[in-house]
Formats: sequence, structure tokens, C-alpha cells
Amino acid sequence: MRNIIIDCDPGHDDIIAIMVAVAHNKELNLLGFTTVAGNQTLPKVTNNLLKVQSYFGWNYPVSMGYDSPLIRPLEVQPAAHGESGMDGPVLAESPLKPTGMHAIEYMRKTLSEAREKVTFVCIGPLTNMGLFLKTYPELQEKIDCIAIMGGGIYNGNILTKAEFNIYHDPDAAKIVFESGVKVIMAGIEVCYSGSILLTETEKAKDGGRASKLFYDLMQFYQRYAIRNGWDRTAIFDCTPVIYLLHPEYFVKEERDVHIETVGEYCRGMTVVDTRGYADEIKNPKTVLVSVDREKFVDVIFESLNILDQQYA
Amino acid sequence: MRNIIIDCDPGHDDIIAIMVAVAHNKELNLLGFTTVAGNQTLPKVTNNLLKVQSYFGWNYPVSMGYDSPLIRPLEVQPAAHGESGMDGPVLAESPLKPTGMHAIEYMRKTLSEAREKVTFVCIGPLTNMGLFLKTYPELQEKIDCIAIMGGGIYNGNILTKAEFNIYHDPDAAKIVFESGVKVIMAGIEVCYSGSILLTETEKAKDGGRASKLFYDLMQFYQRYAIRNGWDRTAIFDCTPVIYLLHPEYFVKEERDVHIETVGEYCRGMTVVDTRGYADEIKNPKTVLVSVDREKFVDVIFESLNILDQQYA
Amino acid sequence: MRNIIIDCDPGHDDIIAIMVAVAHNKELNLLGFTTVAGNQTLPKVTNNLLKVQSYFGWNYPVSMGYDSPLIRPLEVQPAAHGESGMDGPVLAESPLKPTGMHAIEYMRKTLSEAREKVTFVCIGPLTNMGLFLKTYPELQEKIDCIAIMGGGIYNGNILTKAEFNIYHDPDAAKIVFESGVKVIMAGIEVCYSGSILLTETEKAKDGGRASKLFYDLMQFYQRYAIRNGWDRTAIFDCTPVIYLLHPEYFVKEERDVHIETVGEYCRGMTVVDTRGYADEIKNPKTVLVSVDREKFVDVIFESLNILDQQYA
Amino acid sequence: MRNIIIDCDPGHDDIIAIMVAVAHNKELNLLGFTTVAGNQTLPKVTNNLLKVQSYFGWNYPVSMGYDSPLIRPLEVQPAAHGESGMDGPVLAESPLKPTGMHAIEYMRKTLSEAREKVTFVCIGPLTNMGLFLKTYPELQEKIDCIAIMGGGIYNGNILTKAEFNIYHDPDAAKIVFESGVKVIMAGIEVCYSGSILLTETEKAKDGGRASKLFYDLMQFYQRYAIRNGWDRTAIFDCTPVIYLLHPEYFVKEERDVHIETVGEYCRGMTVVDTRGYADEIKNPKTVLVSVDREKFVDVIFESLNILDQQYA
Repeated sequence: MRNIIIDCDPGHDDIIAIMVAVAHNKELNLLGFTTVAGNQTLPKVTNNLLKVQSYFGWNYPVSMGYDSPLIRPLEVQPAAHGESGMDGPVLAESPLKPTGMHAIEYMRKTLSEAREKVTFVCIGPLTNMGLFLKTYPELQEKIDCIAIMGGGIYNGNILTKAEFNIYHDPDAAKIVFESGVKVIMAGIEVCYSGSILLTETEKAKDGGRASKLFYDLMQFYQRYAIRNGWDRTAIFDCTPVIYLLHPEYFVKEERDVHIETVGEYCRGMTVVDTRGYADEIKNPKTVLVSVDREKFVDVIFESLNILDQQYA
Repeated sequence: MRNIIIDCDPGHDDIIAIMVAVAHNKELNLLGFTTVAGNQTLPKVTNNLLKVQSYFGWNYPVSMGYDSPLIRPLEVQPAAHGESGMDGPVLAESPLKPTGMHAIEYMRKTLSEAREKVTFVCIGPLTNMGLFLKTYPELQEKIDCIAIMGGGIYNGNILTKAEFNIYHDPDAAKIVFESGVKVIMAGIEVCYSGSILLTETEKAKDGGRASKLFYDLMQFYQRYAIRNGWDRTAIFDCTPVIYLLHPEYFVKEERDVHIETVGEYCRGMTVVDTRGYADEIKNPKTVLVSVDREKFVDVIFESLNILDQQYA
Repeated sequence: MRNIIIDCDPGHDDIIAIMVAVAHNKELNLLGFTTVAGNQTLPKVTNNLLKVQSYFGWNYPVSMGYDSPLIRPLEVQPAAHGESGMDGPVLAESPLKPTGMHAIEYMRKTLSEAREKVTFVCIGPLTNMGLFLKTYPELQEKIDCIAIMGGGIYNGNILTKAEFNIYHDPDAAKIVFESGVKVIMAGIEVCYSGSILLTETEKAKDGGRASKLFYDLMQFYQRYAIRNGWDRTAIFDCTPVIYLLHPEYFVKEERDVHIETVGEYCRGMTVVDTRGYADEIKNPKTVLVSVDREKFVDVIFESLNILDQQYA
Repeated sequence: MRNIIIDCDPGHDDIIAIMVAVAHNKELNLLGFTTVAGNQTLPKVTNNLLKVQSYFGWNYPVSMGYDSPLIRPLEVQPAAHGESGMDGPVLAESPLKPTGMHAIEYMRKTLSEAREKVTFVCIGPLTNMGLFLKTYPELQEKIDCIAIMGGGIYNGNILTKAEFNIYHDPDAAKIVFESGVKVIMAGIEVCYSGSILLTETEKAKDGGRASKLFYDLMQFYQRYAIRNGWDRTAIFDCTPVIYLLHPEYFVKEERDVHIETVGEYCRGMTVVDTRGYADEIKNPKTVLVSVDREKFVDVIFESLNILDQQYA
């Protein structure tokens, strides 16, 4: 069994990723959450997470981290996630509170006390992760790997060549990618390859507690695809979680990856060396290339079913 | 018939491109050359060109341009082209002299007097071309198009994501790519796709005057491929010339292209938007994607044959 | 007698500087003008200069240069100089035309043909001067010196540490300052030290043709000082001209000066090394520190008187 | 009585500053030390501090912080401080150990538990201080002020316009200067104005335990002044400590100060707005301008005397 900490900025796709993880708590032992500013402000994304925990009756520890990137100013994404960061579902306010520990203090304490290595699932900007590694480099040895949703092999979304999570805090991402910790990078291409069809989403409509939340999240989250006439939507943040459960569904490559931190067009680019003739890989990362779409979507529905039954 | 000016930094592949152009003087009316620092210093690359002109008895006007990039310091490429910039062939010194006009003054005069539009073939850093457009924007209307060897769609050579000609003077390249002039970009991918086999090069061994020069150039130019155990070599600078002769041999796309001028990893990157969902193309360039390799190589040998017969 | 070319972007203070120069045509042999975008767009500042020439019946050659900085976008200064770039005086349109030569081509021709060295008076952004030196480095030997209004020893105006002319095109300024040409820098401090009192300006009110133009220019140009309750105004661009006439009025120092081209706060800063313990001066420039204010102002009024009498 | 935490990178002048602080423990209640990479590596500067503590029999808590700047690579200063970071005195190895808490965790704990506000004396690069403020912004209200040795009003030392402590980690300095916390800046000018004469240093030669350490430190630290034929040396890091004891000895001004984080010449510059006509101060800092030199030096000798007597 793999011990995991989820570092997130919920965010619609964050919540779906979290449902997949919690549904598979036999494989993924969730130790706790850390939150970071990204899709929305730190208070908003933390509140979203607490509301979802209360909705399901969960009580994993939630530790708040950084409210802005290392160097850059905060740029939240209301166009994608709404003013709340999780527009769509109407959930009751939560009586739960964060731990009071800072995210990097929670990480320090947890890793210091852990007898086995811990895996991080990072599905927001890498501010918490980067500053944890910067502050406590001696604890790197307690990290099994960091599975990231971020970057892209060839393309970006917020810029032509930059994906939002990396673009938002390229300086923190650079610390993570150059730290020597094993990194698994789920960039936008593998996420797109696992996209869920609008017709598949409909199947969750009359499901249980988890399916209903999923359906409500997707009604908002799919708007952009519908408006553009597309038949599917990538649920980005699910990708690293599903990879940890089923690496055999994925095509992957070992590649040199560096982070570009400046530039008019390339700030936040994950510079992946895809050339065949590179003599040697100096900074190897496991780069996910594509996934079996149907199996990927099956994991999501399987997860919803498990939770629907647990909370029936 | 197309009037052309070749802006170059010879350079082995520059000379081969020039031989292809001159051999096809029925299709490409060569008005003159301009030279620019790149593969080697400005005096060296100009001297190489004059020596080749004397070797064939040509006397096209040669106008020297800039001896360093717009902003960046000069970084020549002796590893690729040797100390002379054209190591390999042993040619006699040339009695020919440059025009005494600066490259951009030659361009101004030529375009001002031209009754028909002129095409530029730019196979070195874009310093001359960029500063000509900056200095004489009113003469853009006399330019048919600028066919460039430079950049890459996905990859680079001098950096993971930057090709030498653009990397060497990204600021000048930015002026060219944002000028509104029609640009045809032959990046490294299309050049690689037209690579000549080592076995094909051998066929020139016992040819005439042009074939001999080609063979001697390739003996030096292929060293890197041989050392790496590859079976072929890209003759980069031929690509825009062969495109002008036979556009039907090429796969191409219209793409937004911007130039990144700063960055540790991306300085000099041609940022090509290859995403399908771009709503509109704001800065469209004709990006060459690939070429029929055998036909590409045939044009080179056809050109050598024409010259061999002319100078027999 | 000193041969001069005035490179300018008129601009109120440019015109006053030009009046001082022309009034002293026994000391300063004005060969011609070149214009550059700065205080306003290139067509506007050129038009202002032509109108002033017609007003006085002058016909010095005017050659238009660059319409924007080397790299940066154009940022004109309507707050200081109005929409026309010379708001205030009402002058008739001019029948005069520019030479049709580009500024750097005019500079090249003039210096090539000159039997004696030429002095440049640069009172706008250094785009023309920088690109002339970049394009024709072999003509540096024909330059006596370049007297610049630009920069500051300790402070700036458009930024805390950057003065407008240098800020507007720091990349061109860097070329000039690193070229090895003798540079005389009149930064904002020396200009402030030569400021004219509002009460002194009034003395020109009922003067002749030149005094009237001066008075009308100052009515607009002084607005900022009046609004802020100051008793004086610096006529920046006069400073290098008056220095050439009367260097004995000035305190000056030889200092290392470099140009910072990037930065949130320091882009366009003239980095003047004023420390006493610098072991050696690597890039020495003549930096004007202060001037005898009354003598400075006397030169302006003396110039107006000369012109008033000539055009009476 | 003022509670202080000293954040340092000893360093000769750090140690002298610490002796002044400890000697005045009636005015300055020293809670503990944090160490940061700067003059030398983090292990070396920490070790130097522990050795000095053992030398005097002190046992203040020492918490190690960051081993490199936020973004930039580590650049230590062996030319100024030797390979050990405190070359000169020969001190026994210390049996003391750091707390095991990270500097920012020590700061968090101390400030959380403090009933009164705490003053930071920062005499190294601001990496610890910047990341503490970034991580725990809610604890700013527990900070009385941050007294810094760093920057300059007009000049620098490591660059023409940049002082070492700020240059070494401009990104962390920017966080501190823009945090809104009250900052007192002792830049190089005020430090120079308080320089100790070589002849004054000699007076410590035959003193007690503290004087002897001071004398041995100065033998190494003064080498540069002696080599250059100067009669005095600035003991930079003493300045903020002496300011806290005797603000009445200092000339100071409230000024806007910003940090430039990039640039060839200005990276790490403290951009101090010294212009008289600034309409309003947006980011006011207390900038120390000069100090009464004799009184400044008297405080140092008074401190040595106190310690000499305590440890006689």
C-alpha cells in the first residue's frame, strides 16, 4: 500500500481526483491534504475541500500552504472554475477546520514520523512542494515520488507552450524538477488522451452521493467544451492518481525535463527533450504520453460506484 | 521567374544551397548576396563566398552586413564548420571584392529599383533581414516573401528547443516574424526529413567541378553524423531553396509563430502553435513540416549535374 | 569650428537647443538634422522641426530615422509635450520636405564625405545613433564625440532611476555607450542645475521672432513646474549644446558608465560608478555634474537676441 | 527592553555585531540566532557561531536556515572572509549543536509564543527572513521591526550598484521590503561613515577575552584596507545593532525603497528614491544615512570592555 499526501487547489478536477483516490483507499493510504493558491485563492480552495469532506463525512487533515507563488503575483482562474473555485455543486458550509499547521510544516512532521516512504500527488501549482523541498532537503529521502499534473510535452493551455499549474509558479516548479526527487509528470497531452465523453458523463446523472457530486461538477466544468462543440473534456487532475493505481494503462517515456521560468511565450514551459539523439539524460523524469481512454474513464466510474455504495 | 537575394553565412550547407540556386537560374534570378556573421565571423563567411564565386567564375554582387547580432554577443560555430567556416575544400583566394555597400543599403537600393517583387532566401542569422525591415519598413511591399532556414516546430539543435540561426539573433528574428511580411519557415524537422544518405554522397565523388566541391564540403560536414553512427545528414540551408523550386514536394501548415528572445532554455525558440483548437491564427507563417526525401536529394544531384556540365 | 549633426525628437526643449545652436553658427557648423521617435511619433517630431525651419526661413537637411526603439515598443510623451509633440506655439505648416534619405544613410554619407571629424548632438532616444554605429562601425573614426542629453548620475525622471531618453531605447543606448566613441553625458542633474526661473522666462515675452517662439514654447513647457509650485524649469536638451559652446561653465567628471537594459526599476538606468575606490575606469565617459546657472541662462538669452536681430 | 533574534552568516563583522549585542543584554534581550548561507556555506557559518558561543560560554539557541538563496545559486565570499568564513582567530571546536529546528520554524515558534513584539537583526542575505514572511504572513504583527545590514543609497560593493547581502538573494529581499513590515536599512554608506581606524583597532591588542577575539578578527578583516592603503575599515554588520542601541547617533530618512531582482548591472540594487519631488512615499523604509563615527566606535569598545570584564 502506498502512503499519499494530496497537494491540491480544488477545483473541479481536483475533487474528482480526490474521489478516485479515496475510493481506492486499499491501494492509496491517504495521510492528508495540503492546499495551495491556484485555481482560486487559498481560503476558497481550502473551503471547497472542507465542504467536500463534510459532504462525505471524511475528516482527513487539511493543512493550508502558500497563498501566492514564490515570486510571481497570484493569478487565479475564475474563467475555468468560477468565483468559488468550484462553481456548480451547492454544498453546505463545513464545520471542519484546517490543522493550523502550515502545509510545509505538516509535510515535515508527517515525513519525519513516517516509517515508509510517502508519495506526493501534486495537482495544483508547486509552491508548497517546491518550498518544502527547499526548506527540508534532508527529507527528500522519505519521498517515494511526486506525481504531478502539470506541464506538457509539446503544448500548453494558458500560453501556447505553458500549462497553468507550472506557469502559475515556474520558480517553485524548477525547484521540484531539479531536486533529484523522482517525478512523474502528467502533462496536458496524456490528460487530453484520457478525456471523458459528454455522453459518458451523462451516465452519472442519476447515481448516488458521489455520482451526483461528479455530475454537478461536470455540468460547470464541461461548459467550455460544450461551448466549443467538443464531445469530450479532460479531467486533468485525475491523471496522476489513476497512474498510481494503474501504471499499466499508460504509455510513458524517460525524458530530460527542465523548467523555463522567464519569457514572453515560454514562461512556465516544461522543456521536455523529445529528441532521439540526446546523448544522455541528465535530469530524467517519467513523462506520461498517453493512456487507454476507456480504461481511464472506467476507473473514474468504478470509483464513483464504490463511493456511491459506501455512502448510500 | 522569381528574383532572389540570398542572405547567408557560408558555411558548408550555405554553399550547397547556393549551388542549387545558381543551377536553377531559369527559375531563380539571383540578384546578389548579402553576408552576415553566424557560422563564422563576417570576414570569414564573406571570404568563403568570394572564393566559391571565383571557383565557378561567378560574379554576383556580394554586400557585407552585420558582424554581430542585434543585442547578443557573437557566438560562431567552429565545431560545425571549422575555423574557416568552410573547412574541407581547398580553394584559391579570390580576387573579387564585396560591393562596398552595406547589406541593408544593397537591399534598399535593389528593392527600390526593382520593378517586380523580390524574394529573400535567408540561411543565416536574421540580423541583416531584421534591421533592413526595421530601417526601411516602407520597402516591405517590394518583398514577395522571405524563405528562412531557421527554428523548429518541436525541437532545436543548439538548445533543446532552439535552432542555431534563430538562437544566434532572436531579437532580429522577432522583427522579421512580427513584421507582417510573408515568411516561409524551414525548421529543423523538415530539414532532417530531407537528409542525404552517406551512400548517396559517395555518388558525387568522381563528378565534375560542382560535384567535387560538394563532395569535399560533405567530407567535413558529415563528420558529426559519421562519428555518431548515423547514416545520413541534413543539408539544412538547401531546404528553403528547394522549396522555392518545388513547393509540391513539401507538407506544410499555416501556423502562428512567435519568437522567444529570453530564457535559460527557450531563448531563440520559434514558438509554433500546433494546437488544433487555436481560435484564430494571429501571426500566420508557412511552416514546412516534411519533404519527400528522395525528390529532395534528386534536386541536389540534378543541380550538381547542371553545374558540372556548365563548368566542364 | 565644430561640425555638428543634431539628432532630435522636437519637442519643446529640442527646439530651444536648436535655436541656441543655430545662433552660434560661427562656433557650431550645423550640417543637418536627423529625427527619431521619442517625445512624439516620428512624423510629428519631423513635422515640428520642418515648421520651425520655415518659421525662421532655415533649410538645413532633415533626414528621418527610426519610428520606434530597437526592441521596445514606442511610448511617446504627450503629458510632457502635448499631442503634437510641440504644443503651444501656433506655426504654419511647412512646405519643406525631409531629404528622403534614412537618418543612418544621411549620417553615413555625411561622415564618409567629411574631411574633418563630426560631432553629434543627440537630444532624443539613441535609436538612430546606436544603429548607425552598429551598421557602420568603420565610420566611428570620423566622429569627434557624441554629446548626449540622457540619463542621470543618481536619479531618473520616468522611473526612479531612469531618464526618458535612455529608458525609451536602452538597447540602442547600450550600443552607443559601449562603442568606444567619446561620449559626453548631460544627465538630469546637470540639466536641473541650469534651470531657468519662471521670472527669467518672462523677459522674452515682448522680444522678436526667436524670443516669441521661445516664450510660447515655455508657456506650455513650464506648466508642470507651475502646477507643482516650482520657481524654475530645466530645458534639458539645451545642455549638451551649451556645453559644446562653453565647457568652462561646467563641472564634469570622468566616470565608468554602463547601461542597464532590463529590470522592473532600473531598465534604462545609466549606471555611473561614482565610487572613489574604483581601481580603474574601464568605460570612461565625460559626465557633466553641474553648471553655472546664470551663465547657462545667459547663453539662451544671448542666442535669442542674435536670432531676434537676424530675423528682425 | 527589546527582544531580538539575530539572523546571520558569521562572518567577521557578524561576530563583532553579536558581541556588541550580547554586551548590551540589558537593552537587547537576545532570544536566539538563526543562520543562513552567505559569507560562507551554511555549515561553516553555523560552526563559526557555535565556536564563538563556546569561546564565551554562551548557549543561545542556534537554528539553521537555508543553505542557498531562493532562486539564485549560492556564491560565497572567501575573498572577504576566508575559506572558513571566519579566518583569523583560532578557536576550539564547539560541543554545541543547533536546535534541530529550521530557522523559519524557530521564528514561527518564538513569535507565536512571544507576548511582546520581536525585533529581527538581519546581517546576512535575507533568505530566512523572506521565506519566514512568505510562509507565516500572519505573524508579521508580532514583528516590531527588521533592522538590516544591506543595500546602499547610491552605491554598491559587489556590483557598482549592488551590495552583497541583497545581491546574494534579491528575491528574498524583495519579499521583505514589500511585506509592509517596518524595515530599517543600514546600507553601505552609513556603514562606511562609521568605519574604525586602523589605529583604533590596535587599542584592542592587549585586552581581555573579547578584545582579543575582536583583534584577531580584525587582523584578517582589515587586510583589504591595508592592501589598498586605507586608514579605516567598515564593520558593516555592527551598524543595525548600534542603531537599535543609539538611534540618536544616526542621520536617517524615510524613503521609498524597492528591490531590483534582475539586470546585468542592477540585480540586487536597493532602489532608494532620494528625489525631493516624489509626491508621496509608497513603500517607506527608514534609511540610515550616516552616523557619528567616534560615538559608533565608542560603542564597540564599550562592548568589548563589558565582555572583557564579564569573562575575566
